[in-house]
Amino acid sequence: MISFAGGYPASDLFDTAGLQAAAARAWQSSMRCLQYGPTDGLPELKTQLVALMARRGVTCAPEEMLVTTGSQQGLDLLLRVLLDPGDTAVTEQPAYPATLQALRLQQAHVVTVPVDGGGIDVDVLAARLASGSIVRPKLLYTVPTFANPTGATLTRERRLALLHLAVQYRFVIVEDDPYGDLRFAGNAVPSLLALASEVEGARDRVVHFSSLSKVVAPGLRVGWTIAPAEIARRCVIAKQTVDLCSSPWTQAIATQYLAAGSLEQHLPLIAQAYRRKCEALCDSLRTQFGSEIGFHQPEGGMFVWARIPGVEIDALLPNAIAGKVIFVPGKAFFADDPDTASLRLSFAAPNEDEIREGVARLKRATQASRTASSASAHA
Amino acid sequence: MISFAGGYPASDLFDTAGLQAAAARAWQSSMRCLQYGPTDGLPELKTQLVALMARRGVTCAPEEMLVTTGSQQGLDLLLRVLLDPGDTAVTEQPAYPATLQALRLQQAHVVTVPVDGGGIDVDVLAARLASGSIVRPKLLYTVPTFANPTGATLTRERRLALLHLAVQYRFVIVEDDPYGDLRFAGNAVPSLLALASEVEGARDRVVHFSSLSKVVAPGLRVGWTIAPAEIARRCVIAKQTVDLCSSPWTQAIATQYLAAGSLEQHLPLIAQAYRRKCEALCDSLRTQFGSEIGFHQPEGGMFVWARIPGVEIDALLPNAIAGKVIFVPGKAFFADDPDTASLRLSFAAPNEDEIREGVARLKRATQASRTASSASAHA
Repeated sequence: MISFAGGYPASDLFDTAGLQAAAARAWQSSMRCLQYGPTDGLPELKTQLVALMARRGVTCAPEEMLVTTGSQQGLDLLLRVLLDPGDTAVTEQPAYPATLQALRLQQAHVVTVPVDGGGIDVDVLAARLASGSIVRPKLLYTVPTFANPTGATLTRERRLALLHLAVQYRFVIVEDDPYGDLRFAGNAVPSLLALASEVEGARDRVVHFSSLSKVVAPGLRVGWTIAPAEIARRCVIAKQTVDLCSSPWTQAIATQYLAAGSLEQHLPLIAQAYRRKCEALCDSLRTQFGSEIGFHQPEGGMFVWARIPGVEIDALLPNAIAGKVIFVPGKAFFADDPDTASLRLSFAAPNEDEIREGVARLKRATQASRTASSASAHA
Repeated sequence: MISFAGGYPASDLFDTAGLQAAAARAWQSSMRCLQYGPTDGLPELKTQLVALMARRGVTCAPEEMLVTTGSQQGLDLLLRVLLDPGDTAVTEQPAYPATLQALRLQQAHVVTVPVDGGGIDVDVLAARLASGSIVRPKLLYTVPTFANPTGATLTRERRLALLHLAVQYRFVIVEDDPYGDLRFAGNAVPSLLALASEVEGARDRVVHFSSLSKVVAPGLRVGWTIAPAEIARRCVIAKQTVDLCSSPWTQAIATQYLAAGSLEQHLPLIAQAYRRKCEALCDSLRTQFGSEIGFHQPEGGMFVWARIPGVEIDALLPNAIAGKVIFVPGKAFFADDPDTASLRLSFAAPNEDEIREGVARLKRATQASRTASSASAHA
């Protein structure tokens, strides 16, 4: 089976040597690893993360940051402190399913805005806010850079427009940024949090999540939240009740890994490997499918979002599995009105040969689905 | 400053050699440490924990168990899937404050039942259920063995009576058991979960939390929940949204530690050290305070609960801090109607000399408080 389905980073790209060395250094302060740590994270890790964010163009104070068990926990904590049942939350569509699930768990009223190759359509959002078809949203959730599932990156112009809307309509932009460092083509676009300093009043309107899961290793379970100090404080209080603290041991390892500069050394290797995988996938899709498939080639991240017009992806999936290739049907990423011709292909895990063979299998499965569909139409 | 205030286990009792060896063995499967793991926990860890529970007299299946970020997260997940706003939750009183906070976060209606030296007063509970002064409780939370804060252990008779009440009134017993293995005196009493097999229908009414935090090291953040399969399944679904998984790296270390039998080897050392510390504390309290203080000497755990009748503990605390000794005023552990003469003393962290000196300081601070109180009464 060749899998384009996973959302996991490539295991064979983990910097095992660097992480082993970091673990050995962390253990030199074994009590730090073994005892409870502060709920908001080890101070030395926060120092490293503040420095990392500075390299990404963001100035932040330690009291605006908390360390979480992956950025997923950051979202859970934020929604718990920010959302009351029935509050309106806007998400891009298609969107990361765990976010939709987290919003439902908080009984939010979920409103969706479509995404294109340039990210969430801010003009549509502006029009719907102006017309009153979206009323008093509490927050808007977006993965603006190499989104899951679309791979799309929000343009700089749209980022600025979105920040202005957040100030005008007084909602919080929840910027989820696990993939931003995985750029392998095109020019960098500052995060919404970095750009917020250019829009008066916007900095108080952005909560930013990031993580080491996609650029170092998920097993550390080290994510972080940057939020206005009062929101950060409330998230820390919630985390006291939720799990007291994330593992200080893996936090200590992450501290040593970052302090040694290993992220900067190793990250280009990951990005280049993903570039080659992405090119293999996109080239194969073009070669095998030609104009039969539509997709936008991403400039980073792990995902290609595709449409095969005229093919019911739900019907394609069993044929694909029979042909030993798997992917995620696009409808999993829709809160409403699913696009049944869409699918998400992750290029992170398979190697380039597997990617090319996987696309060939996908093509054969698509032909089988078309033949079956045509036969049933004529039956 | 000598601290009786902490709830942390003694750092100098951690089995650093055993944990270092376990970490080295875990790293032999480095991909297991670094990649995402299953939401319900690494299967090999669950195998070890099922075996550990069997040694504690509990038979359970893997699908009745999930691994959590400390047992604290187990409680948070359970309350999220079990409680609706306004549901009645019964707790022992005094109780662990984070539990009270977690219940409030879920907007529970909290009802308290008093604790004495034999744990929660099940006769009072039975009477209040029979009279209708407690109506349709959804759950009852208890730390039945070496409770935080009281150190008390629920008697076997009361355990059986409580299990019968849970069946009769259809509530869930939430048994939090982080300290049960820290017995250093008296005879073992089976957990409520173990005894549930003796009461028809009771096994479906018990959710059990345990943790390696107090018997191995909190930094692992490894706790576990045992619940009826349907409740466990719902907790796992909630955990997918909350943090995807607890750190597989520290789970892998815990697996190796347990598989090597290190817990059984090292635990007696911790228990014996705590026995000596507990005896030092209780002997000093008797020597210094005589009949001026009331307390029940615990048979395990980390805490002594004391009362100094006629002394306002809130007024004592600043005198104690000025005299370089600290503790937690008892009122922190009350949901309502606080006992202002009570205090919690933890013997886990200080050594025996510090404990004796700390009690002497506490005695001097108490005398100062009485003198001040008497002076103000005569002023």
